[in-house]
Amino acid sequence: MNYTTLFENIVKKRSFLCVGLDSEIEKIPSFLRKGKAPVFEFNKRIIDATHEYAVAYKPNVAFYECFGAKGWTALELTVTYIKKNFPDIFVIADAKRGDIGNTSKMYAKAFLENMPFDAITVVPYMGEDSVTPFLSYDEKWVILLALTSNKGADNFQYHNEDGIRLFERVLSISQKWGTINNLMYVVGATRAEMLKDIRQLVPEHFLLIPGVGVQGGSLEEVAKYGLNSKCGLLVNSSRGIIFADNSEKFDTVAGEKAKEIQLEMEKYLSQHKLI
Amino acid sequence: MNYTTLFENIVKKRSFLCVGLDSEIEKIPSFLRKGKAPVFEFNKRIIDATHEYAVAYKPNVAFYECFGAKGWTALELTVTYIKKNFPDIFVIADAKRGDIGNTSKMYAKAFLENMPFDAITVVPYMGEDSVTPFLSYDEKWVILLALTSNKGADNFQYHNEDGIRLFERVLSISQKWGTINNLMYVVGATRAEMLKDIRQLVPEHFLLIPGVGVQGGSLEEVAKYGLNSKCGLLVNSSRGIIFADNSEKFDTVAGEKAKEIQLEMEKYLSQHKLI
Repeated sequence: MNYTTLFENIVKKRSFLCVGLDSEIEKIPSFLRKGKAPVFEFNKRIIDATHEYAVAYKPNVAFYECFGAKGWTALELTVTYIKKNFPDIFVIADAKRGDIGNTSKMYAKAFLENMPFDAITVVPYMGEDSVTPFLSYDEKWVILLALTSNKGADNFQYHNEDGIRLFERVLSISQKWGTINNLMYVVGATRAEMLKDIRQLVPEHFLLIPGVGVQGGSLEEVAKYGLNSKCGLLVNSSRGIIFADNSEKFDTVAGEKAKEIQLEMEKYLSQHKLI
Repeated sequence: MNYTTLFENIVKKRSFLCVGLDSEIEKIPSFLRKGKAPVFEFNKRIIDATHEYAVAYKPNVAFYECFGAKGWTALELTVTYIKKNFPDIFVIADAKRGDIGNTSKMYAKAFLENMPFDAITVVPYMGEDSVTPFLSYDEKWVILLALTSNKGADNFQYHNEDGIRLFERVLSISQKWGTINNLMYVVGATRAEMLKDIRQLVPEHFLLIPGVGVQGGSLEEVAKYGLNSKCGLLVNSSRGIIFADNSEKFDTVAGEKAKEIQLEMEKYLSQHKLI
């Protein structure tokens, strides 16, 4: 998927919502846990109930990997189900991979070639040759970690050389590796006011914002500081949608929660004259 | 496995060799590729031929992950085969994981609980809460990236705040998260002279050194600057051993290559009065 199509989908759905499929088995409604493929069954029902309000899904790979081969099958089934039934939806492997060149190439193959993901999250620590193998696929994206939303972000991401913090260096240097058509950044929403500075460095790039909802970020602030002329934002919500209810109607409730967020997003898109 | 046992195994085998199982299917001898489980069969024969000379194995997870569920089965079979037949050998998942706390917990479960790995490589970018979930298992280890051996290491790892480079900050801060009994560091061997400075910061910790052999590092230099009173080094070689030959006797040749390195290591261990 390219930048233009992504923006068109945002306008069409009046939403820049990404639904995080952090489908932890212990939190899945108990009646589903007895089935043969509970994680995929859960995801399928969540996707069916929320796809009208979402432009992206983001399976968190750890929650599949912890079941070994069986978990990988659930991940493959999930991304395949989305791309087959809702091809306009952007699907992100939240995998946080990154290694030396020939190894990153194998990770890229795993997610962008062998599975139909549109994008993968990548860690910048090892630098250029760890990131570029993921950028060699047409209409596939790298979403590079810049500033994360967790407490530990303070340990290293603010390391400051002559006024330039590490996450700012990541944003500056990595722009040479890709374009606004294949490179986005992860920016934690718990520091929404920092989006103002970040937008100076990356005015056009899409930003993937985790941390709205359970992690404490404010959607209004994110929209205020982060929206650009082509929206430029994908805002993720996971637990607040997918685990909002654990009864037999968990999917209906998830759909309602997604709709609430979509309506709020519609308001901000309209205020910014994007729809 | 604890620090003492690891050192005892090094003394017993007169070796601090880690064999990297970067078992890329295209490089496996063609006669093996026709089988049902070629990667596991290849690994099994490599392990049988090299285990006398090695204290550790390090499957590179990307090379398994790129085959999806089938690849994960090969990875599980490999680590299980090693720990069942050679329980004294230290097995490292070279996975370079790291994410927010509840996600890192799932990655830790995948490798340290559901599979019998002794250690996993972890990326420090997201800080403390992304690393500590991996440190909560008895006799299991985190091997944290500090200074890597690839070209891209220059992009961010040398980011310098008041004379402290990012990789040095990683070494200093992370020492508070674990002990010499559950925390090691990755230090690229292409910069062996830097081991001198690094040993000032982490005199006692074990260091995992990739990059000897194909990546260009010198074992002599690594031993000179890196050995401490309990050895404190695991030096990895992958392609130089496992792909040294691609005929029917690839395993015998791999054994010979491993033995060559072991003999060189024995020399340095002896010079440093460790054996």
